[in-house]
Amino acid sequence: MNFNLNFNNVTQNYLFAEVANRTAKYAAAHPEKQVLKLGIGDITLPLAPAVIKALHSAVDEMSNKDTFQGYGPYEGYDFLRENIRTYYKSNGVELDVDEIFISDGAKSDLGNILDIFSAENTVLIPDPVYPVYVDTNVMAGRKIIYANATAENGFLPMPESNIHADIIYICSPNNPTGAAYSKSQLKEWVDYADKNNAIILYDAAYECFVKDKSLARSVFQIDGARTCAIEFCSFSKTAGFTGTRCGYTVIPKEIKKDGGSANKMWLRRQSTKFNGVPYIVQKGAAAVFTEQGQREIFANLEVYNRNAKLIAETLDELGIWYTGGKNSPYIWLKCPHNMSSWQFFDYLLENAQVVGTPGAGFGKNGEGFFRLTAFGSEKTTFEAVQRIKNLLKN
Amino acid sequence: MNFNLNFNNVTQNYLFAEVANRTAKYAAAHPEKQVLKLGIGDITLPLAPAVIKALHSAVDEMSNKDTFQGYGPYEGYDFLRENIRTYYKSNGVELDVDEIFISDGAKSDLGNILDIFSAENTVLIPDPVYPVYVDTNVMAGRKIIYANATAENGFLPMPESNIHADIIYICSPNNPTGAAYSKSQLKEWVDYADKNNAIILYDAAYECFVKDKSLARSVFQIDGARTCAIEFCSFSKTAGFTGTRCGYTVIPKEIKKDGGSANKMWLRRQSTKFNGVPYIVQKGAAAVFTEQGQREIFANLEVYNRNAKLIAETLDELGIWYTGGKNSPYIWLKCPHNMSSWQFFDYLLENAQVVGTPGAGFGKNGEGFFRLTAFGSEKTTFEAVQRIKNLLKN
Repeated sequence: MNFNLNFNNVTQNYLFAEVANRTAKYAAAHPEKQVLKLGIGDITLPLAPAVIKALHSAVDEMSNKDTFQGYGPYEGYDFLRENIRTYYKSNGVELDVDEIFISDGAKSDLGNILDIFSAENTVLIPDPVYPVYVDTNVMAGRKIIYANATAENGFLPMPESNIHADIIYICSPNNPTGAAYSKSQLKEWVDYADKNNAIILYDAAYECFVKDKSLARSVFQIDGARTCAIEFCSFSKTAGFTGTRCGYTVIPKEIKKDGGSANKMWLRRQSTKFNGVPYIVQKGAAAVFTEQGQREIFANLEVYNRNAKLIAETLDELGIWYTGGKNSPYIWLKCPHNMSSWQFFDYLLENAQVVGTPGAGFGKNGEGFFRLTAFGSEKTTFEAVQRIKNLLKN
Repeated sequence: MNFNLNFNNVTQNYLFAEVANRTAKYAAAHPEKQVLKLGIGDITLPLAPAVIKALHSAVDEMSNKDTFQGYGPYEGYDFLRENIRTYYKSNGVELDVDEIFISDGAKSDLGNILDIFSAENTVLIPDPVYPVYVDTNVMAGRKIIYANATAENGFLPMPESNIHADIIYICSPNNPTGAAYSKSQLKEWVDYADKNNAIILYDAAYECFVKDKSLARSVFQIDGARTCAIEFCSFSKTAGFTGTRCGYTVIPKEIKKDGGSANKMWLRRQSTKFNGVPYIVQKGAAAVFTEQGQREIFANLEVYNRNAKLIAETLDELGIWYTGGKNSPYIWLKCPHNMSSWQFFDYLLENAQVVGTPGAGFGKNGEGFFRLTAFGSEKTTFEAVQRIKNLLKN
C-alpha cells in the first residue's frame, strides 16, 4: 500500500489556529480585558423559529413507524429541490429539479465535485482565496495557476485571454474579500470559459447578501453559463445552518463532453459515495422557503447587513480603503500605516482587543490586508467599531 | 476541461431498479395480491424514544442564542467520540478519542477514504459484494482483483499467499451473504495484510448483530490489526439511522508509511472536504449510548434477530442451504431446484408474492443465490415465511 503522495504537497494553513493561539495568549495575560471577535466566518444568530418548528415536526415523524423515514434519495428529497427551483425562479433562473442536488454543505461538494474531472486539468484560482479550493486540488495532484486579486482590480481579477485554464473557481460575493462581480464582469468569465472549454465552479455561498441588482445572485443569471458553470450554495449563511449542515449544487444538463454529462456523473458519484442529507435537516431547510421562514431569515440577515454597514461606515470615516461591506458579510481592509497583516492583527488585539483575520493567511496578495466579518452580534460589532474608531482616528 | 474517464468504466448496476421494476409490474397486474418485501437493506422500526428526546432537546438548543451551535469540529464532537471509545472498550478494544472520526455514514467514508491512498494500489474485493467497494475504486482507476466467496468456503474467502493486494475490503458480518468471519479467520487476514504491507478496510456496519463470542465485533479485537486496519461503522442498522445519517471511522495512529500517517491524512482530508455531522444528529447518536438508549435499541435489534431466526428456521425445515441468519440480518440462500437468481426472484414473486434480492446482482459468484433481509416488520416476516414454506415444502 502506498499513500497518496500529493498529500505531502498540501501546505498546513495555520491561519485560524494562529489567530486562536495569539488571542488566547493575550487573553490569558490580560484577564481584565474583554476581547471582541470579528474574525471567524461563523454566524451567531440561532435558527429561525420556522426552521425550529419544522425540525421538531420532522423529529416527531421519525418517532413513528408510519411516518419514519429510512434511506432517502441520494440527490435529496423533491420537496426541498422544488423549493430551491422556485427560489431560483424568483431570481429569474429556470432550473429542472434534477439539476439540483442536496448536500451536507457547499464545502463538501466543492471538494467532492473534483472526482468527476480529470487529474490532468489545469485549475485557475484567485489569490487571495478560501484555502479549500487550493488544498482539494493539491490533494488530487492538479496543476494550479493563480489569478491575482489586488487593490488595483478591486480584488476582482478578470480573465486573461493568453492564459488557458480548465477549471475556474469564482466565489462572488467573495470570501475573504467581500468583493462581488457585476453581471457584465461575470459574462466575461463565462465567455472565457466557453472559449477555453473550461468549467466554472461558482461558489454562491454568500448570494443572500447581494442587494445591488447589477450583481449576480446566481451564475445562471448570465447568458451562456448553462454550458460551462456549476453552482454551489448553502443554507449556512442564508439561514444559520453552519452547524446544521445543508447545501445544494446546481449542475445544468448542458455540461457535456465526449458523451459524458456532468449532471449524470455527479449523480453517479453521489449515489456511490454519499447517502443523502438527514431527512430532519432537509425538512428544516424546506421551512426556510415558507413565508414565515423567509421573513425570519430576512430579519436575521438584516442584522448582519447592519453590522457590515456599520463597519464599512467606520472605515469610510477613518479614510481606510476596503472592499466588501455592501452585498457581503465580509469587510476586507487595507491595513493602516502600511502595517503587514499580522502586525495589524497584533496592533488591533493589543490596543483595541478586537480580533480579525490577517489577509496574508488567504494568499500572498492578502498581505497588508485584513478581514472583518459582520457575523458578530450587534452589541459586539457596535463596541468593536467604537474601539477601532478610537484607536485609528488620529 | 476533461472529465474523469474512469467513470466510463463504472458499470451501471440496475439491481434494485430492476427489483423495483419487476415488483411494480407484478403489483399492477395483480392489484388483489399483497406483495411482501424482504428485499432492501433498510430498517423499518422508528428511532428509539431516547434518541427522539435527544434530537428534540438539541433542536431546542439550536433555537437559543446562548446554546446555539455553529460550525462543529470536522472530526465530530468529543461527547460522541467519548461514547464510542467507551463502547469499544466494552468489546475489549482500547482506542484514543482522536482515532475516532464521526461521519455522515459508513458509505461516505468507505468511498472517501480512498482519497488518502495511491491510485496505483491493487484492491482485493470479495465477490459477491456490496457494489460500492467496486465502483469507488473503478472511479479512481485502481486495479481490482476478486476473492471468490462461494458455497465451498461458506462465502468467507481466505487470503491466498501467492496473490498480492494493497487494499483489502472485508465486510463481516457480510452484506449480502450474512456470513461472518471468526476471530481466528480474521487473524489470517491481518497477518496477510501485514506481510503484504496492505491495508484492510473493515466494514463493521453489521457488528451489532454479532452474538457469538468467537466472531469479531471489531477488527481491532484481532492482534496486529492496529498497524493494518481501518474500521467503518454506522448507526444505520444499530439504531435505525439510515435516514438520520451518522457513522464513524476508526483509524489507529500506528498506520504509517514513509513518514505519512493514515490518521493525520484522514483528518486533513476531512477538514478540507467535509464540515462535520449536524450537531442535532450527533446529539441523537450520543443518546444511543445512554442506559435507556441501549435498552431501546437492543429491543429493536431483537425484533430483527427474531425475524432472521424465523427465516433461518424455515429454510432449515425446507432443507435449503444458506449462510447468515445468525449474527446477521441477512439470509443468503441457495435457490431451490437449481434456479438462477432471477428465476427464483420471479418464481417467489409470482407464487408467494414475496420480494427478495437476486444474488447475481452482487457479483458473478452470487448467481444461483438469493438474499432475504430481517429488516421487515415482524408481521410481514411471519406472513412471508408462511408463504415461502407453503410454496417450497414439496
